[in-house]
Amino acid sequence: MMKRIAVFTSGGDSPGMNACIRAVVRTAVYHGIEVYGIMRGYSGMINGEFVKLDSASVSNTVQKGGTILKSARSQKFLTKEGRQQAFDQLVNNGIDGLVAIGGNGTFTGAMLFEQEFGIPTVGAPGTIDNDLYGTDYTIGYDTAVNTALEAIDKIRDTADSHDRCFFIEVMGRDSGYIAIPCAIGGGAEIVMIPETQMSTDAVIDTLRAGWKRSKTSFIVIVAEGEEEGSATIVASKVKEAIPELDTRVTIIGHVQRGGSPTAADRLLGSQIGIAAVEGLMNGMRNVMAGIVDRKLVYTPFTDTIHKKKLINQSFMRMVEILSV
Amino acid sequence: MMKRIAVFTSGGDSPGMNACIRAVVRTAVYHGIEVYGIMRGYSGMINGEFVKLDSASVSNTVQKGGTILKSARSQKFLTKEGRQQAFDQLVNNGIDGLVAIGGNGTFTGAMLFEQEFGIPTVGAPGTIDNDLYGTDYTIGYDTAVNTALEAIDKIRDTADSHDRCFFIEVMGRDSGYIAIPCAIGGGAEIVMIPETQMSTDAVIDTLRAGWKRSKTSFIVIVAEGEEEGSATIVASKVKEAIPELDTRVTIIGHVQRGGSPTAADRLLGSQIGIAAVEGLMNGMRNVMAGIVDRKLVYTPFTDTIHKKKLINQSFMRMVEILSV
Amino acid sequence: MMKRIAVFTSGGDSPGMNACIRAVVRTAVYHGIEVYGIMRGYSGMINGEFVKLDSASVSNTVQKGGTILKSARSQKFLTKEGRQQAFDQLVNNGIDGLVAIGGNGTFTGAMLFEQEFGIPTVGAPGTIDNDLYGTDYTIGYDTAVNTALEAIDKIRDTADSHDRCFFIEVMGRDSGYIAIPCAIGGGAEIVMIPETQMSTDAVIDTLRAGWKRSKTSFIVIVAEGEEEGSATIVASKVKEAIPELDTRVTIIGHVQRGGSPTAADRLLGSQIGIAAVEGLMNGMRNVMAGIVDRKLVYTPFTDTIHKKKLINQSFMRMVEILSV
Amino acid sequence: MMKRIAVFTSGGDSPGMNACIRAVVRTAVYHGIEVYGIMRGYSGMINGEFVKLDSASVSNTVQKGGTILKSARSQKFLTKEGRQQAFDQLVNNGIDGLVAIGGNGTFTGAMLFEQEFGIPTVGAPGTIDNDLYGTDYTIGYDTAVNTALEAIDKIRDTADSHDRCFFIEVMGRDSGYIAIPCAIGGGAEIVMIPETQMSTDAVIDTLRAGWKRSKTSFIVIVAEGEEEGSATIVASKVKEAIPELDTRVTIIGHVQRGGSPTAADRLLGSQIGIAAVEGLMNGMRNVMAGIVDRKLVYTPFTDTIHKKKLINQSFMRMVEILSV
Repeated sequence: MMKRIAVFTSGGDSPGMNACIRAVVRTAVYHGIEVYGIMRGYSGMINGEFVKLDSASVSNTVQKGGTILKSARSQKFLTKEGRQQAFDQLVNNGIDGLVAIGGNGTFTGAMLFEQEFGIPTVGAPGTIDNDLYGTDYTIGYDTAVNTALEAIDKIRDTADSHDRCFFIEVMGRDSGYIAIPCAIGGGAEIVMIPETQMSTDAVIDTLRAGWKRSKTSFIVIVAEGEEEGSATIVASKVKEAIPELDTRVTIIGHVQRGGSPTAADRLLGSQIGIAAVEGLMNGMRNVMAGIVDRKLVYTPFTDTIHKKKLINQSFMRMVEILSV
Repeated sequence: MMKRIAVFTSGGDSPGMNACIRAVVRTAVYHGIEVYGIMRGYSGMINGEFVKLDSASVSNTVQKGGTILKSARSQKFLTKEGRQQAFDQLVNNGIDGLVAIGGNGTFTGAMLFEQEFGIPTVGAPGTIDNDLYGTDYTIGYDTAVNTALEAIDKIRDTADSHDRCFFIEVMGRDSGYIAIPCAIGGGAEIVMIPETQMSTDAVIDTLRAGWKRSKTSFIVIVAEGEEEGSATIVASKVKEAIPELDTRVTIIGHVQRGGSPTAADRLLGSQIGIAAVEGLMNGMRNVMAGIVDRKLVYTPFTDTIHKKKLINQSFMRMVEILSV
Repeated sequence: MMKRIAVFTSGGDSPGMNACIRAVVRTAVYHGIEVYGIMRGYSGMINGEFVKLDSASVSNTVQKGGTILKSARSQKFLTKEGRQQAFDQLVNNGIDGLVAIGGNGTFTGAMLFEQEFGIPTVGAPGTIDNDLYGTDYTIGYDTAVNTALEAIDKIRDTADSHDRCFFIEVMGRDSGYIAIPCAIGGGAEIVMIPETQMSTDAVIDTLRAGWKRSKTSFIVIVAEGEEEGSATIVASKVKEAIPELDTRVTIIGHVQRGGSPTAADRLLGSQIGIAAVEGLMNGMRNVMAGIVDRKLVYTPFTDTIHKKKLINQSFMRMVEILSV
Repeated sequence: MMKRIAVFTSGGDSPGMNACIRAVVRTAVYHGIEVYGIMRGYSGMINGEFVKLDSASVSNTVQKGGTILKSARSQKFLTKEGRQQAFDQLVNNGIDGLVAIGGNGTFTGAMLFEQEFGIPTVGAPGTIDNDLYGTDYTIGYDTAVNTALEAIDKIRDTADSHDRCFFIEVMGRDSGYIAIPCAIGGGAEIVMIPETQMSTDAVIDTLRAGWKRSKTSFIVIVAEGEEEGSATIVASKVKEAIPELDTRVTIIGHVQRGGSPTAADRLLGSQIGIAAVEGLMNGMRNVMAGIVDRKLVYTPFTDTIHKKKLINQSFMRMVEILSV
């Protein structure tokens, strides 16, 4: 029976993490479990940065971007000695279980830690990249897509006014999850994602064909992990091939990580926060709580780490049809 | 084999309708089918307001709220004579099939029309209310929720600053679909929806209990179809019972119907627009295209009209836990 | 020489108050003056709700709506006894001077208090209504206008889609300051403000004339202080006179008071917060800091209270020209 | 007496240009003057891209970013031959006067053109950079600042969550007009603008001092015209000097040019559009309409081109005080 748990955020921050923290705290309170926040992820765990939380601690946080518990990367937790210190801190603070909000790096650490020291962790998928197996959407993904899309809407104003071709780079690490809805919702002509083999030559052909039939403004979305290179590289190759095209590059960047979470991310963060605590109460460990087809599922960390969530191929066909 | 189809919007407008229209048009073009827009729904069908559309007609519309085809309610289409005129117009314009974007009123008309005159229609769920069986989400729902939530965020600034109790009325007709995420994501203490029997007395008890433990600002979300009455009525009963509470009422109103669609609504509108045209091409009729558990499904109009989509009861529990 | 000052917010909250509080605190720190916050305005002054503030206390507040010091109305401060208690609290806490962020009610109290007890106050114009003499703009006004305008943009989507006539009520107490830019920037056909004598009959005439030349959607902005009555009343008279018009009413309401402040309100709040502290340091009292024609001015409370800031009449002509 | 005028946009687009175009068109209609739009600035003037406009042509455009008349740069207009062709086109279309919306490049062309061919032009200051003498604010400036500030707000979420130092580059050509309110309103510790001589060494000193007193997250705003180099260059020098600082760079970029205009930009664009047409009617030429201290002024193009609008030095002091 859990008496005291702790929650922390680790890895890159994402909008909705605070909604998840709030749900963890209030679910614990609801069930009569004490709850602590650990500042700065594994780094704070090692350094003993523990803060007692209650219901009021998380008032007025559900709408906030970032993470009130802060996040950091810890080299020390990668060492046995560091993990031993972290364990000692948990023992000193009487912590029975952990909720880890983050991605696969976070879960890998938690799993190793559990094997060595037996402290159970339930994970929550907190990343804008949506690249985690075991949940349809990660906490922060919907907000990141909407932030990118709002930027694209503004850029299209300028693209249309000046008959320009914009290459817009969006985030997403090794996946096109952010790029795809940005392309469909942003009215882009072309999308380049790591999951497909679209060559820069094919991009050039498409743009040249559009140019010939008097199309004058274009938007090309490039996912940051695209194997043909960054938006800057692709744009310079295109410019070389079609000099008459007025090309511009915009890298949307870190704004995609911040901002007040959308309704979907607040709801998802809340659902998963509740599920994580109730999972711990039910004896779960080394699993990530997620929502698949609107149902709550717990997926072993080994699966979230080793299985790849495939992007729906029908989306590529949608971009093709819609840019007709 | 379809040669020429027409698309129209009917009933209340919703954000993402234009993304759906754009997808219908471009999918038709992609498959070599001619496509017309009918202005003002059934009313324009009767009056012959047909406009030929091509790919360029829908450029730069994906991000726009409202409907470029306009919408209207038609008394005349409820009569046999009106429908005969509509049929004559379709025949004169050589229309083989229809895509109807709207809700159950729209689909009821389409089904009757098909029985009388044999013109096949595939429906697209365009309403902010999310109360249609056969799709997890309707086009416009996600935007409406986010719009309401942004308003609630602003109101909470004032509620907190003044230690007030706000009763906020959101849309949703006979369902709590909009109210629920607004309550969870807006940090509301209480939510009143048509699907549950929460009495005003229970609301008063909860607020009084909070007041006694020194809680001074509250948000109560009231769905417009709540059987206990409107936000105004509930607030006045509460004020009578707890005079020391500084109560205020805000009705979010028509802003929920407008605005640039979110990424989710642009994506959904696009998916369904494509599916509607390809459904017609495949001989479908009297069905609505929807997305259930991320898969495309076609649901007979008789089901969308007669079956009720139940709200996930776990959401009520979430509100209870999160307002602890 | 000031050693310790206090800052408080009073009356209705407005976006940018926190930017002003932050500037007060940091200017005091910059000049080596101690600074306290008083919670809940005059009410907290009487009850001794004093909080010591330093530079870190106001970190990450510049972008927040509402007021971190909260606001309240105090009946007790209207009595001599209440003011005596407030004075005793200030003496006990060693406060030499006050910065009062609010409107004319706030300044009237401060002036009386100074006459009785000699504590100097410099005021900061914090209200969304922009109805204070002595400053071109009040803190919160620009945000309120933009919030209202965003709502109007969304409503216009629906008005256009349905050929409707919307009556939209905006805030502004006894002035049309909010209504005017909403009308010009929102593409409204008509604006009704307290400063002019536009009869409902004239509104009816204008709408009927538009209707006759086939104009089908209209937006009428009604300021809340309009002497012809609220938007609801005007709309019902119009509906009676022109039954074929599809009329709708939206009251934008309390959302106008909240939300993250615009750049202009953050800048103005910051400028005035600095000026208020430096005014106190220079021996000023019973004056409000404001910006007139981009220059800092201090206006006696007697003037801010008794002089009326007139609305630029050319704006009415603009609405007429632009709705041609 | 003017019978027919034309309006065009030239140079970089800016939000509020459409509000200005709309005002030009409706003011002309109001005064019984015919009005044409010229597409793509001087380029379209040479090529004869003239479009007749009426009141309905500009319906529903006041809220749109970009320019419905499009913009382009014209090499040909720099030649005598090109200007002769432009003049011939104006004569053929019976144009008596021009409204040119743009910046100093646009006005220089217009002035030369008037000297050679006698066609009067009144200018409207349309640029996000706010670097034009003769108006307090240019059309688009307020929107660009708010867009940049919203991005900074999101980045601060991440900066705070990760204890990072962000270098954020904003637009503004050779001036710090955009950078200054972004720094004050965005809670930045440092701002680097072309108008001041802040060395990178001074930036390093300030950051190191903050770091020593345990401050862990910083925001440095760098104007694009900063003589110490771009945000990327400054950041890399800082990283070299303080390796323990976790630095990141974001270039906000083209999003600053787009988006729906703020209330202030819609109002300003409208005021200036009216003033431009009425200026032409009153025989003005080679002047720019602007608003200085809330009053309409017409400034000779020679002044707008040769005089420099100085940034208020008190703003630099504000940044210093507020980052205490």
